Amino acid sequence: MALMTRDDYIASLGRMKKRAFIMGQEVESLVDHPLVRPSLDACAMTYELAQQPAYADPMLAASSLTGQQVNRFTHLHQDTADLIAKVKMLRLLGQMTGCCFQRCVGMDACNALDSVTCEMDQSLGTAYHARFRQYLKHVQEHDLVVDGAMTDAKGDRRLKPSQQADPDLFVHIVDKRPDGILVRGAKLHQTGALNAHEIVVMPTQTLSEEDQDYAVAFAIPADAQGVIMVCGRQPSDTRKLEGGPIDVGNRQFGSHEAVIILEDVFVPWERVFMAGEYAFSGLLVERFAGYHRQSYGGCKTGMGDVVIGAAQSLAQYQGTDKAAHIRDKIVEMIHLNETMYACGIACSAEGKATASGTYLIDLMLANVCKLNVTRFPYEIARLAQDIAGGLLVTLPSEKDLTHPEVGPYLEKYLHSVEQYTTEERCRMLRLMENLTLGPGAAAYLVESMHGAGSPQAQRIMLARLADLEGKMRLARRLAGIKD
Amino acid sequence: MALMTRDDYIASLGRMKKRAFIMGQEVESLVDHPLVRPSLDACAMTYELAQQPAYADPMLAASSLTGQQVNRFTHLHQDTADLIAKVKMLRLLGQMTGCCFQRCVGMDACNALDSVTCEMDQSLGTAYHARFRQYLKHVQEHDLVVDGAMTDAKGDRRLKPSQQADPDLFVHIVDKRPDGILVRGAKLHQTGALNAHEIVVMPTQTLSEEDQDYAVAFAIPADAQGVIMVCGRQPSDTRKLEGGPIDVGNRQFGSHEAVIILEDVFVPWERVFMAGEYAFSGLLVERFAGYHRQSYGGCKTGMGDVVIGAAQSLAQYQGTDKAAHIRDKIVEMIHLNETMYACGIACSAEGKATASGTYLIDLMLANVCKLNVTRFPYEIARLAQDIAGGLLVTLPSEKDLTHPEVGPYLEKYLHSVEQYTTEERCRMLRLMENLTLGPGAAAYLVESMHGAGSPQAQRIMLARLADLEGKMRLARRLAGIKD
Amino acid sequence: MALMTRDDYIASLGRMKKRAFIMGQEVESLVDHPLVRPSLDACAMTYELAQQPAYADPMLAASSLTGQQVNRFTHLHQDTADLIAKVKMLRLLGQMTGCCFQRCVGMDACNALDSVTCEMDQSLGTAYHARFRQYLKHVQEHDLVVDGAMTDAKGDRRLKPSQQADPDLFVHIVDKRPDGILVRGAKLHQTGALNAHEIVVMPTQTLSEEDQDYAVAFAIPADAQGVIMVCGRQPSDTRKLEGGPIDVGNRQFGSHEAVIILEDVFVPWERVFMAGEYAFSGLLVERFAGYHRQSYGGCKTGMGDVVIGAAQSLAQYQGTDKAAHIRDKIVEMIHLNETMYACGIACSAEGKATASGTYLIDLMLANVCKLNVTRFPYEIARLAQDIAGGLLVTLPSEKDLTHPEVGPYLEKYLHSVEQYTTEERCRMLRLMENLTLGPGAAAYLVESMHGAGSPQAQRIMLARLADLEGKMRLARRLAGIKD
Amino acid sequence: MALMTRDDYIASLGRMKKRAFIMGQEVESLVDHPLVRPSLDACAMTYELAQQPAYADPMLAASSLTGQQVNRFTHLHQDTADLIAKVKMLRLLGQMTGCCFQRCVGMDACNALDSVTCEMDQSLGTAYHARFRQYLKHVQEHDLVVDGAMTDAKGDRRLKPSQQADPDLFVHIVDKRPDGILVRGAKLHQTGALNAHEIVVMPTQTLSEEDQDYAVAFAIPADAQGVIMVCGRQPSDTRKLEGGPIDVGNRQFGSHEAVIILEDVFVPWERVFMAGEYAFSGLLVERFAGYHRQSYGGCKTGMGDVVIGAAQSLAQYQGTDKAAHIRDKIVEMIHLNETMYACGIACSAEGKATASGTYLIDLMLANVCKLNVTRFPYEIARLAQDIAGGLLVTLPSEKDLTHPEVGPYLEKYLHSVEQYTTEERCRMLRLMENLTLGPGAAAYLVESMHGAGSPQAQRIMLARLADLEGKMRLARRLAGIKD
Repeated sequence: MALMTRDDYIASLGRMKKRAFIMGQEVESLVDHPLVRPSLDACAMTYELAQQPAYADPMLAASSLTGQQVNRFTHLHQDTADLIAKVKMLRLLGQMTGCCFQRCVGMDACNALDSVTCEMDQSLGTAYHARFRQYLKHVQEHDLVVDGAMTDAKGDRRLKPSQQADPDLFVHIVDKRPDGILVRGAKLHQTGALNAHEIVVMPTQTLSEEDQDYAVAFAIPADAQGVIMVCGRQPSDTRKLEGGPIDVGNRQFGSHEAVIILEDVFVPWERVFMAGEYAFSGLLVERFAGYHRQSYGGCKTGMGDVVIGAAQSLAQYQGTDKAAHIRDKIVEMIHLNETMYACGIACSAEGKATASGTYLIDLMLANVCKLNVTRFPYEIARLAQDIAGGLLVTLPSEKDLTHPEVGPYLEKYLHSVEQYTTEERCRMLRLMENLTLGPGAAAYLVESMHGAGSPQAQRIMLARLADLEGKMRLARRLAGIKD
Repeated sequence: MALMTRDDYIASLGRMKKRAFIMGQEVESLVDHPLVRPSLDACAMTYELAQQPAYADPMLAASSLTGQQVNRFTHLHQDTADLIAKVKMLRLLGQMTGCCFQRCVGMDACNALDSVTCEMDQSLGTAYHARFRQYLKHVQEHDLVVDGAMTDAKGDRRLKPSQQADPDLFVHIVDKRPDGILVRGAKLHQTGALNAHEIVVMPTQTLSEEDQDYAVAFAIPADAQGVIMVCGRQPSDTRKLEGGPIDVGNRQFGSHEAVIILEDVFVPWERVFMAGEYAFSGLLVERFAGYHRQSYGGCKTGMGDVVIGAAQSLAQYQGTDKAAHIRDKIVEMIHLNETMYACGIACSAEGKATASGTYLIDLMLANVCKLNVTRFPYEIARLAQDIAGGLLVTLPSEKDLTHPEVGPYLEKYLHSVEQYTTEERCRMLRLMENLTLGPGAAAYLVESMHGAGSPQAQRIMLARLADLEGKMRLARRLAGIKD
Repeated sequence: MALMTRDDYIASLGRMKKRAFIMGQEVESLVDHPLVRPSLDACAMTYELAQQPAYADPMLAASSLTGQQVNRFTHLHQDTADLIAKVKMLRLLGQMTGCCFQRCVGMDACNALDSVTCEMDQSLGTAYHARFRQYLKHVQEHDLVVDGAMTDAKGDRRLKPSQQADPDLFVHIVDKRPDGILVRGAKLHQTGALNAHEIVVMPTQTLSEEDQDYAVAFAIPADAQGVIMVCGRQPSDTRKLEGGPIDVGNRQFGSHEAVIILEDVFVPWERVFMAGEYAFSGLLVERFAGYHRQSYGGCKTGMGDVVIGAAQSLAQYQGTDKAAHIRDKIVEMIHLNETMYACGIACSAEGKATASGTYLIDLMLANVCKLNVTRFPYEIARLAQDIAGGLLVTLPSEKDLTHPEVGPYLEKYLHSVEQYTTEERCRMLRLMENLTLGPGAAAYLVESMHGAGSPQAQRIMLARLADLEGKMRLARRLAGIKD
Repeated sequence: MALMTRDDYIASLGRMKKRAFIMGQEVESLVDHPLVRPSLDACAMTYELAQQPAYADPMLAASSLTGQQVNRFTHLHQDTADLIAKVKMLRLLGQMTGCCFQRCVGMDACNALDSVTCEMDQSLGTAYHARFRQYLKHVQEHDLVVDGAMTDAKGDRRLKPSQQADPDLFVHIVDKRPDGILVRGAKLHQTGALNAHEIVVMPTQTLSEEDQDYAVAFAIPADAQGVIMVCGRQPSDTRKLEGGPIDVGNRQFGSHEAVIILEDVFVPWERVFMAGEYAFSGLLVERFAGYHRQSYGGCKTGMGDVVIGAAQSLAQYQGTDKAAHIRDKIVEMIHLNETMYACGIACSAEGKATASGTYLIDLMLANVCKLNVTRFPYEIARLAQDIAGGLLVTLPSEKDLTHPEVGPYLEKYLHSVEQYTTEERCRMLRLMENLTLGPGAAAYLVESMHGAGSPQAQRIMLARLADLEGKMRLARRLAGIKD
């Protein structure tokens, strides 16, 4: 059976031997660490919902490899309905967790590798595709979380990999052996790395011949020898250590990013999917980025639903929900949120089959989707802070709320519309703080900006994909200019 | 055979006996009038492309009523593929004409009437649906242009129809007879009215019981007794009367809007599709507006392609196309244009079948589409004017360009990059002027703002369609607030 | 006496012997030409208001050269109060004319030349300053309209003047003689050229040594031998030829731009203010542009007041003025308009004396002012069109309104709120059309974009003037980074 | 001598007996508390700079009350130069601290009270003005920090003070005695309350007769009997408790807000400046808000300078500073920042004397200023996050950077452009995190939104202050409509 329960998932992670550091300490039991657990719970939601019949659509799919029912996060998209279902699944999970649930990167990496290895084999006579499908079958059968690792350290942004002072600033092959390759380097911003079973590594940019050792893609267990993870900080991260139910904002969920250091990690050939074929590095980046830019039309609109719901709740609690300007701001938030969603749906509906049969989203529209995602959540958050009021950043600690002397004062003075309690108001303010200035903002804002490539990366794609010559032809024809 | 040629279409219009006034004159031969002909040519393009095999997809469809191949403009959408094809057809025509081609309003009216008459019959026991389908079969078989007439004169916007000082400010039934009804009133902003064979009239807003006489929908021949059309003016409209090839901007195409006055027009019962069922007036408005808000994700992006092409052409002609800021503005224009398109595609892909089998777009996303259309063409036009340069409004007349004394000076001083002629530059500037400040701007800007309802109408729909209660529930759950 | 009456001004123009072409015809009497007269009336308003005691402040100033009271348009700014008064004068005239009144360019040119000739003399030992002041005294004493001519034809934008295929694409000295210089070339976009007594010519960009013949500044009478003017077209310009009172939109006022061709024009030395001093060309451009970027914080906000007033009027006439969303849009328009004004005031208040004693605006803030002017009028116009409704581009001709048969129908169906007449509504719609899509839009939109330099020119100045190094130092200090 | 040194200021605070709670604990020594000290250091900067001759302008002013040199924060503005100097002082302090330095609220409160008490006395025959001036002399002579307390708890926003379930939700007089009044209630969002010597309390909104007990203004020592302060939380506030030099972001400075509870506090009559004169409550609110809306054109642009400097630094460190899109974003940030500054300067330059002689800013332009401040810092922050890159929220802890095992890896992999150290990069990233997502964002974003009134408050003022009737008259005149 290809589906794992939530508890089995957490247990399976508990059995792994990852080396991970958080705030200067190596962590023994990651699944219990209070800075990690909320992100684990978020990722676990991808298992939990898959078990619930009400969410079978969109959570499950019939595997194109085995025919078995699998979690859609491990599925290869077989048609535009699959692509659309993916967006809906991500929106659903964004709604349920209010944060990044971390499992889409691996899904996007696997779908990209599927078509690229196929086309690479067709073009170069290599044999990566079958190998990759074998690997993916393993992922599907064990219902694994795969971390898709793309962003390298990059060093000086003006220099190519081999021009850098330190050759390791991009992940590269340091040795090719009969049984596999040895790789070194680091991948940054690895969302959910601590919660993954597997890491699929890809190159971070289009490479040329002199950088062929950097043209490498492969899969390793997340606790492979030589892998070290260092967890990054987020705004207000240590609220999770305080233990209270209110100031943390999002009661249960969160996310994390980690630096993954690959210190001469060995990868057996059956897990190697690119090793020197630099001419296909750009295609792999473009496909992965394309899928991932589609993703944000789902997950970020799900988070947006939560932000809108929190804003509307605060307006209700404070007695402002009927004011025309508040209603108008809520409508604007909805509009922006649904525009992003529309872009996610559109690039899916316009998807096409690749050579491997796996469906690819429309690249132009996926890039348009992501470019909107680098803007609209910021405006939604701004409007939400407008509605929330200044208390968002002046609310005393929950310890003050329950303090014997000042607690009653705060209860008295922070109470607003009669039918809502002061605590409700405080909880909702803290959720809003989390989403727009706290750990949630790391996912909702900064990740919206930089995840799947910074906005300039999307703009470059738009310039490439737009048929400017064709548009000029249209204009000339109407102006009566002969070609 | 259900398809008419371009020439037959024009001939068929020539045979009609419409009463129409333009600039204070009653017009004898509309098809030859220089202020009307460009719009006729634009509408005729919907016939011309339908005859070309290269455009069979998306121009043609198999009729759900007869099985025959029909022009998609007369088709009832049978699935999401049909809805998507509609958007692509409209984008294509926007690209080919650079203006409004006028035929989508009737298509949208017919699709809306199809499902609403069906549901009305089911609910009220009326018998409009079969009657309407009979009528539509006639339209399909003769490949007719249908004007969809919704916007009433409205008088004082604060008052309901029956509260107005003059009862005729909304179209209403003035008499019910055994053989039909007598109607009076006027419809404003009727795009392409002069080029239509048929007029389908619908109510303009949700009505209540006291306004039941205003709940009326019907079809009439565009030259029915009692119908008078008065053509509206557009910016720089009389350039079309000057006769030259350059200053007119768009060499061949244009559009027009007319006031349609219905002075006690008789409508036989077989052409009446609503007569008093006020409870269904709102649904009809909502459906028609929904379809028409989807339409703008097609036609306006087609016009946007032309604007972008014209801007890029001018940059080339003037030697600025490689400047980083110009490239960035072109990318921004593409991004905004494709965002509108994405919304058009998305609301189509998320379409659902109605009771009559006809597919309806996703209303939320269609409203989101239109709301973006009230903004982005303006910003695209602004960027286009930035790229075009000030000559856009300071270029001398084409009569100066060919004047024996000053012509050579202008040729000398307006010449820019060597491989392009001064005339090319001037033609392209005039096209841009047409699109952003001239007759094209009436369609590209003001119609984008007000067509299918002004932005506030979309905002009201967004507020209605957004499940705010559900979003608040999501927020409460994450904040740990019990329901 | 240094002040001329409105009538004397018009008479003085009538006595000039300009050679001017409009729409392929050489014009005999410019002051009576219906395409020119509205712009003459607008310019004449600068004389008319100066005669009215109520407007003495800001219209008049005490000349720093003669002590006499002069029209502020001929004045050298002596302090920040003068700079602020200038902005207020321009706003006032924008309000009174609803268009470009054309006289500020010469004022800005003269103020720029005053300080630059002074500094040039100090640096190079030339003797231009006294000569220029002598000239300006003449301008003040005769209360002349001066056209400031900067923008050259430019040819291929990628090439310097001397690199162009045709050496005349920038105005240059073709001969230096004992008594003066001979110049050739053309100046584009010359606002109000037909209404000017004088033309002050300046170089269009920073020049280097090989382009020293292009470093030329001088003054000529507008009807000097060899000067030919070709009037440019504007959107809907020929409405002025139709003769009716309504469709023209702005009843009395308008503006025009012309191409000025200088065909070997002779300039005596006493009217030459730069002749080869290329090192000061950039400074002259920067100062003139700076003053002119300040100007737009005045005149365009004056036009903005009219646009806002027209929008509010239409809302009243149509019964929508109390709707929350309409009120909110009006507030937004006010906000954007006043932001531009604030920038105009601020760069004036922060002005400083130059070496000649003449005050210069703060260049950073003046560029900020203009950059906002390239954006906000577009958004104000968009909001105005939102409020105006679709009738803006579908309203029939005034000839239809008075037609015996259809006139009464239009009167009936276009009537809205009881206390306002249909004609009032139509007039106001036409004014709005004029301002946002017609001749007024040439001034309110395209000139806002490109006048005083296109937005990229302002951005380059911002990058130059911002003390980025200083800002980085602030950041490093707070981050605890040692320099 | 009216000027205190930085050290004396801190010592003077140390001698106060305030009751204050932070995170559930009553604090003994506020000046040493690590969550308070950064804000104290920021406020102390207003003393430190006043001692440095280089900053005498703008930090010092000659008191209009005593003729003595006083800190400008205690000064009554005597002319527009004073108003402009105030804006420059605030920008300077924003640049030096990168946070809110808390002392402007009291300055704005005192300037507002000065003119309002004067006009109230003139109108009602009261005697508040002399009393207030006496008090202000005391403030000037002792160079005190005054907290200006306006925002009440407000309860249900739909209800007036006396309609609330709890009468204390707005501060009110509970008893009038021969020697003074007894007041009860709470003031929220009190910036810098813990660092103030004095609290000046004002009503929060326009009041009507039934709420006259709420029309109360007075001054109390910040440690008066019955005053309790509860410090609010900020994003990432506890970074200050961690003790390291990097993760805190802003090495030395910060701010705080507190809830001030007034539990039956006694105020002697000589410190009461309004007690029942409800008709002047609105004027006081309007004036205070006006001054404070001006303030934000200073302090927030100073913070903006730091954000821009940090963004440019990160671009340099990462090797992207020469990329066209990065330069363009920096220019945009500068433009937005300077637009806010321009509004601050403009409302100052247009200031006018009030009846008391104290200068008031132009209210329209001050409201325009603040309304821009509710938008532009958000966009500046968004662009800054774009430039900063994703590391902003994925950077590991400084404890990892120095960890013996993973530290060297991070040093290796986070190193970018050669001449900058990894530590510099990390410090700058943390500063940017502080400013856009941490404690600095509380001041730079949320306070920009809500401080001095939320945006809707400014919009209401704009609607009130705009002469819409006058603008309509302009439009009618140009359209040829008779009044």
